[in-house]
Amino acid sequence: MIIVLKKSASEEQIRHIEEKIREWGLQPSISHGAEKTVIGVIGDEAVIRTKPLEVFPGVESVMTVLKPYKLASREFHHDNTSVTIAPVTAGCAPTVIGGRQIVVMAGPCSVESRESLFEISRCAQAGGAKIIRAGAFKPRTSPYAFQGLGRKGLEYLSEMRRELGIPIVTEVMDTRDVEMVAEFADVLQIGARNMQNFNLLKAVGKVKVPVLIKRGLSSTIQELLMSAEYVLSQGNPDVILCERGIRTFEPMTRNTLDLSAVPVIKRESHLPVIVDPSHATGHWDLIPSMSKAAVAAGADGLMLEIHPRPEEALSDGPQALLPDRYMNLMKELGTLASALGRSI
Amino acid sequence: MIIVLKKSASEEQIRHIEEKIREWGLQPSISHGAEKTVIGVIGDEAVIRTKPLEVFPGVESVMTVLKPYKLASREFHHDNTSVTIAPVTAGCAPTVIGGRQIVVMAGPCSVESRESLFEISRCAQAGGAKIIRAGAFKPRTSPYAFQGLGRKGLEYLSEMRRELGIPIVTEVMDTRDVEMVAEFADVLQIGARNMQNFNLLKAVGKVKVPVLIKRGLSSTIQELLMSAEYVLSQGNPDVILCERGIRTFEPMTRNTLDLSAVPVIKRESHLPVIVDPSHATGHWDLIPSMSKAAVAAGADGLMLEIHPRPEEALSDGPQALLPDRYMNLMKELGTLASALGRSI
Amino acid sequence: MIIVLKKSASEEQIRHIEEKIREWGLQPSISHGAEKTVIGVIGDEAVIRTKPLEVFPGVESVMTVLKPYKLASREFHHDNTSVTIAPVTAGCAPTVIGGRQIVVMAGPCSVESRESLFEISRCAQAGGAKIIRAGAFKPRTSPYAFQGLGRKGLEYLSEMRRELGIPIVTEVMDTRDVEMVAEFADVLQIGARNMQNFNLLKAVGKVKVPVLIKRGLSSTIQELLMSAEYVLSQGNPDVILCERGIRTFEPMTRNTLDLSAVPVIKRESHLPVIVDPSHATGHWDLIPSMSKAAVAAGADGLMLEIHPRPEEALSDGPQALLPDRYMNLMKELGTLASALGRSI
Amino acid sequence: MIIVLKKSASEEQIRHIEEKIREWGLQPSISHGAEKTVIGVIGDEAVIRTKPLEVFPGVESVMTVLKPYKLASREFHHDNTSVTIAPVTAGCAPTVIGGRQIVVMAGPCSVESRESLFEISRCAQAGGAKIIRAGAFKPRTSPYAFQGLGRKGLEYLSEMRRELGIPIVTEVMDTRDVEMVAEFADVLQIGARNMQNFNLLKAVGKVKVPVLIKRGLSSTIQELLMSAEYVLSQGNPDVILCERGIRTFEPMTRNTLDLSAVPVIKRESHLPVIVDPSHATGHWDLIPSMSKAAVAAGADGLMLEIHPRPEEALSDGPQALLPDRYMNLMKELGTLASALGRSI
Repeated sequence: MIIVLKKSASEEQIRHIEEKIREWGLQPSISHGAEKTVIGVIGDEAVIRTKPLEVFPGVESVMTVLKPYKLASREFHHDNTSVTIAPVTAGCAPTVIGGRQIVVMAGPCSVESRESLFEISRCAQAGGAKIIRAGAFKPRTSPYAFQGLGRKGLEYLSEMRRELGIPIVTEVMDTRDVEMVAEFADVLQIGARNMQNFNLLKAVGKVKVPVLIKRGLSSTIQELLMSAEYVLSQGNPDVILCERGIRTFEPMTRNTLDLSAVPVIKRESHLPVIVDPSHATGHWDLIPSMSKAAVAAGADGLMLEIHPRPEEALSDGPQALLPDRYMNLMKELGTLASALGRSI
Repeated sequence: MIIVLKKSASEEQIRHIEEKIREWGLQPSISHGAEKTVIGVIGDEAVIRTKPLEVFPGVESVMTVLKPYKLASREFHHDNTSVTIAPVTAGCAPTVIGGRQIVVMAGPCSVESRESLFEISRCAQAGGAKIIRAGAFKPRTSPYAFQGLGRKGLEYLSEMRRELGIPIVTEVMDTRDVEMVAEFADVLQIGARNMQNFNLLKAVGKVKVPVLIKRGLSSTIQELLMSAEYVLSQGNPDVILCERGIRTFEPMTRNTLDLSAVPVIKRESHLPVIVDPSHATGHWDLIPSMSKAAVAAGADGLMLEIHPRPEEALSDGPQALLPDRYMNLMKELGTLASALGRSI
Repeated sequence: MIIVLKKSASEEQIRHIEEKIREWGLQPSISHGAEKTVIGVIGDEAVIRTKPLEVFPGVESVMTVLKPYKLASREFHHDNTSVTIAPVTAGCAPTVIGGRQIVVMAGPCSVESRESLFEISRCAQAGGAKIIRAGAFKPRTSPYAFQGLGRKGLEYLSEMRRELGIPIVTEVMDTRDVEMVAEFADVLQIGARNMQNFNLLKAVGKVKVPVLIKRGLSSTIQELLMSAEYVLSQGNPDVILCERGIRTFEPMTRNTLDLSAVPVIKRESHLPVIVDPSHATGHWDLIPSMSKAAVAAGADGLMLEIHPRPEEALSDGPQALLPDRYMNLMKELGTLASALGRSI
Repeated sequence: MIIVLKKSASEEQIRHIEEKIREWGLQPSISHGAEKTVIGVIGDEAVIRTKPLEVFPGVESVMTVLKPYKLASREFHHDNTSVTIAPVTAGCAPTVIGGRQIVVMAGPCSVESRESLFEISRCAQAGGAKIIRAGAFKPRTSPYAFQGLGRKGLEYLSEMRRELGIPIVTEVMDTRDVEMVAEFADVLQIGARNMQNFNLLKAVGKVKVPVLIKRGLSSTIQELLMSAEYVLSQGNPDVILCERGIRTFEPMTRNTLDLSAVPVIKRESHLPVIVDPSHATGHWDLIPSMSKAAVAAGADGLMLEIHPRPEEALSDGPQALLPDRYMNLMKELGTLASALGRSI
């Protein structure tokens, strides 16, 4: 940590800061520049980080040298982590997220009925998706909007999972539901609005199911990594990160898909990262181009929404792909993945 | 709701849309402009709103005429709502938020110890605060940061509350804790990061304690009102809104305090609105000017953080006011309130 | 245009609005909904748009049905526009932006010396760039930073252009320089900070040289199209748009590259669109992945910065590619373009 | 400047960086922390700042210790600067911006006609405005919108100025017009969209007329101070800064008024700062509360738009105050200013 002093800092103020630093078991190192004096603080940054050095008289600003996350960082864990999802049907191959294969998770936005779930899941699987996505609990801005089928939805998911032999990812919104949802899901999804629901993060850190964390609408990449750190620090090593668009001033898309987050996360962290172009753009016609862009940017997977009759969708109809458009997109993505030395 | 059609929309597509609208029990009204055709949809907008009209072939865009919130809107409830907090000591006057008096809620960021809580609360009360604010459960970006004293903190708060005869506002972060915290608190605070934790909103909507909702870092005013709607729709009429800064590109302040939100909320809603300049700016030296600005903008109250030794604060030290600065500020705010025809 | 009335709008207020609309030569069309009354305005929207209807008593809000741009819109001009740049050496093939080929514009950030310009341009051309980019006039945040070589830089560019037989794109910052720069440049660049320098846009709209407009740091896509409209409306049909990152709260990249802008612009407009990943990300290590993503998203071209000795660059060293990294990237982009049915 | 090295930085890389630093006439100072090594660079930061240290192999990040502005900084010039505008009528008192008095600049958005300019200016003056604001050159997003009366508008302004004996502030948009506008104006305004039109800043830095710089829609406070530095560095010491709202995701206001900018600028700089609530909010009904908030936040002045018939305004009608509302507001502001120990 580097403390930059005000020009007006007095000798006494500087002495006071140095004393405090030593009191905390750390080492101050003063450097008098031509115009400014700075104090480097040497020692365990975890200790330093908790101290409000900005408030000491004479301090102008404080700069952090170390990253606030550790378990999530590539410095701590150099090689890529891949998350393995056990096969639903014994003897089949597991699904690996973070390897050579780009893993597509597709399905309806929410479980709307047993029939439509089966119909869409079959289509998703036929097109090449390796995991089915569908929400039983839906976080909705309005209390008057469809809130999901809840436990009934999970039961439909479970039945479909067994019959099609395909793993599922589904959202958990409430600490009270974590254990229950963990019994049904192959991957637990933490939604964008819950990315900083810290108790929920702690709770999913204690179960033995992989966790997919969606980046919050206004969360920095560093905050996303800190949320991963919450889960990792509870003992759950299987964390997947998901870029799904951030909130900006641009009104033509629902959010702004920040694809630079993919290579930035790859540089900063060892965790796999996928992209959700459906929620990022909010418009089905933008999804093919942004799916291809995500794959070209190096994403380890995609999350796609499909609906055969978007006119009847109970949530997010405008961003759902029609089955034939999904099929076409998957073919194009296959060609693209090959050109990039990957598969789909 | 207004549906704008594409120039290329066919007769058949238009007919299809009209049929669907009638099928839902609503009335279409076509208007052929010089360059565009639009369809007005007449009937219960609550029904229309759930339909993904954007996905119908031939539709260019859809515009909503009505507000998505109802119970929170001034259209529905014309007069100002004021939230009354019963006195702690029988026979004393209640505290009213949303009346002529500007209500200051002050205290430490978090309960750090029994002693410091009493010390700071006494100072807050002496300066004119009518409610003590202090967190027992702290949402922290890092899993390694101080997470609050939890139930122990609530017990200290309870003891202080009785002894000083002053009501308290404290945060609840977890659906599992709502009933417990509600037994201790005079006002339940929903933190900015939980503004769209919809299950938590539903849970506090079911208890009989006033709820203070902080605006999320990247939430629009409309989304804040929708979160209020969640609480109101569960039967709890006592909702206070709090502007506490939004996330922008400006790095010199922790967040950007959006004071325009005060008159905008007053125009759109009947609910009282207060301002938290401490979290908005993140720097104690900006708090006096922004507190005065908040009062001049028409806020019904303020939330202020005080710490006698910010160098030792376990959270948010840089934004805490020293006791004497707090005392001075309260005097200045009193003069200002008088000039504006209010009191403090 | 649709006018939504307040619930409280009086008969007299409505009559006043209707009269005014008729006075302007337009037609009002009232529609009484269950909860709101709306007035559709039929006629020439160009007339309506200039009227401040929001201020009429009784009006709640006003919604626009038509796009504010015309010449730039796909509705007005259905087929893709491609911009053709005449060959430098008579008899050679022209360069077409907006066709099957993805056109790479590469070079140094600024012209630093005759020698380095030649060195970098040769490398750019060898790697497959079809246009050399380099600034002689540099907009710099600080008055103390290198401001470009000015006219001397243009002369070096001209010499290099002739010798290598490759067209150049270079920035013009000042209305007073437009004619001079237009004599040297094959494409005039309007920088992000000048995207709404309307007099400059008018000036470049009057010369007969193609214009490349970079999206402003905080400009919406609609504003970018309006800036194109400025140029087009002066008679210059050769406009190329460039996405180069927008300003958001994310600090890990210099800006946030908004790749969704590519398909959105393609849908809204007929103009070609290219991407500048160098300025968008600000870090050379992110440029390969974002270049590939831009191509996969459908961009018609790329702008890349190269520097053989970034340690000595006078501007934007951190975002420059080393020559061998540039060469590798161009090979990868070639493979990718083929997989997408395009060439480079 | 502080250079943080990568964990993986080799001895050779460190030596290379140290050598370069010495080569530039500066002094490196290495500090080996428990986990990271940092190099402090001692010497003239103006030299260091121009070097792209981020690109040196082994470097993780670079932190700047000094502010990039000097003439605009309070460190350089400790006491408040006040800008004095000579009286129009000899013998009258000058207008001082940055003193005890809060200076209101009021008038129409643009000069629409000789008559309306006189009418509105008389009203502005009667209410207590000390300077008339009105645009003759108008930067408009659309090429089809009213672009201002140009030189004719300046002549009307000049006539009104003489007759009413009140100074004027008016915008200059084009380097070619600076000398001409400077002959008419008492204060030259640089609009938000031209805040980083660096050639324009240089040009107004060379005339002997005070300059008012509006903060760009997406400009940081530091960038605003750098733009002031451009003007100051050309020899013009009379710079006034103006906060007028920044672009955020909130759609209910035209921009988000960042009032924290007032105390932040006061801390960082010695220059006077005023607020324009009209452009910030875009709605006349929000202007009274935000004007009061701006005064309470410590602004040295306000810019207000007035129009007696906003229904007929050629630009920005929705944000204009009616004359009687303006008169009322000025009275309220007078009371408020007194309570704050200032006058209006």
